Amino acid sequence: MNDAQRQALVERLLALADDELILGHRDSEWTGHAPILEEDIAMANLAQDELGHAAIWYGLHQELTGQDPDRLAFQRNALDYRNVQLVELPIGDWAFTMLRQYLFDTYEMLLLARLQESAYPPLAQAAAKMGNEERYHHRHSSAWVQRLGLGTEESHQRMQRALDELWPYVEELFTPLPGDSLLAEAGLFPNLGELREAWRGQVLPFLAQAELTVPDAPALPLTRRDHTEALIDLLADMQMVARSDPEAVW
Amino acid sequence: MNDAQRQALVERLLALADDELILGHRDSEWTGHAPILEEDIAMANLAQDELGHAAIWYGLHQELTGQDPDRLAFQRNALDYRNVQLVELPIGDWAFTMLRQYLFDTYEMLLLARLQESAYPPLAQAAAKMGNEERYHHRHSSAWVQRLGLGTEESHQRMQRALDELWPYVEELFTPLPGDSLLAEAGLFPNLGELREAWRGQVLPFLAQAELTVPDAPALPLTRRDHTEALIDLLADMQMVARSDPEAVW
Repeated sequence: MNDAQRQALVERLLALADDELILGHRDSEWTGHAPILEEDIAMANLAQDELGHAAIWYGLHQELTGQDPDRLAFQRNALDYRNVQLVELPIGDWAFTMLRQYLFDTYEMLLLARLQESAYPPLAQAAAKMGNEERYHHRHSSAWVQRLGLGTEESHQRMQRALDELWPYVEELFTPLPGDSLLAEAGLFPNLGELREAWRGQVLPFLAQAELTVPDAPALPLTRRDHTEALIDLLADMQMVARSDPEAVW
Repeated sequence: MNDAQRQALVERLLALADDELILGHRDSEWTGHAPILEEDIAMANLAQDELGHAAIWYGLHQELTGQDPDRLAFQRNALDYRNVQLVELPIGDWAFTMLRQYLFDTYEMLLLARLQESAYPPLAQAAAKMGNEERYHHRHSSAWVQRLGLGTEESHQRMQRALDELWPYVEELFTPLPGDSLLAEAGLFPNLGELREAWRGQVLPFLAQAELTVPDAPALPLTRRDHTEALIDLLADMQMVARSDPEAVW
């Protein structure tokens, strides 16, 4: 790996880690509040898995930069996070949460399958390790999207409203970072255009089958440097303990 | 099992389930807020396990009564919960949370070991299933109590303060329900006096080794029908979603 590739990989790893950290935190807001006990447990599991993935990506970032994962997770300002806005949006209702999870899980599952072929072995190994969990997540969230999409009139309306709100945010998942083309050329990270096609090939028929209509609204022109008030609130909440006493032994 | 034993077992199962549900909910309040990423993940795991145990105990309760676990978990009033106050107290600081967890984990680990000998096979099987998880919890919380007890002056003081606050609540774990003597005679549930001795035999030397001093304060005269404002607040929070739309398909 040359220096430019290395720098591009560092940026990409941070984006991967931040997506998982922020989504994991949103999932954790449901634990103890889901509508049924089984889902309480499932949300705790999901939060644990996504935070675990974040730790793995921060760990690979650390191998290349020496930067402390806990410092990255808990002591940056909102503008320094590289997550997509899709994962930082507030949890909304159960339909919104499950649909966001489904859209992200499908992306992550397809991404991990491709990452297992990465020319950077630590990345390939990490992706293999996470793959099983992600297939389980995908099964769980897709079952809910289908169940609510085809459920009662009320549940269908909620799911359609969630899709109308979320859809403009999905393109950001496939918007390349400046160094991504270098990574794709070197076989270090998949081509996001191909990933996008694979994602649409799976998601569009699935949504149609759940009787949900993809809205016409254009994609928001977002980069991973753009964030909302919602991220600032989330970080204030998440960082409260770590910042209250940064030198504590804990 | 005769009717009186059956009724006593139903009461005891509800107490077991409620302890796990409320503690699991308290644990979940830390997910996404723990001081370091590794502990974020550990707290999500802990919440998931305790809520999973609650679901198992509610499930055994249902086999005997036909009552719906989700209704029991989410749609009772505070006065109908049968958890000990130890688990309903607010999370406090990290030292308080870890010490409460240690005190409860030790109780649960010793209880589960005895329950594996229960004359009621479903109870014995459930206990065997949970045992491994609980030994892991116990290792985790005891490592923290030791680390903070023997850590800095600040961490030691926090841990000692937590012990001073928590100690008056521990006796309630060993206070029999009205039907417990019937259960013990029939070998359905362990004798709580013996369990208390085993617990003290393990906890007292461990705390001394962590340089923590058990306070002189007398035990609070609590029964599982006494609750605090903290439980009312916790339930208001936990039941918000379920109560907002009890007939929803979700």
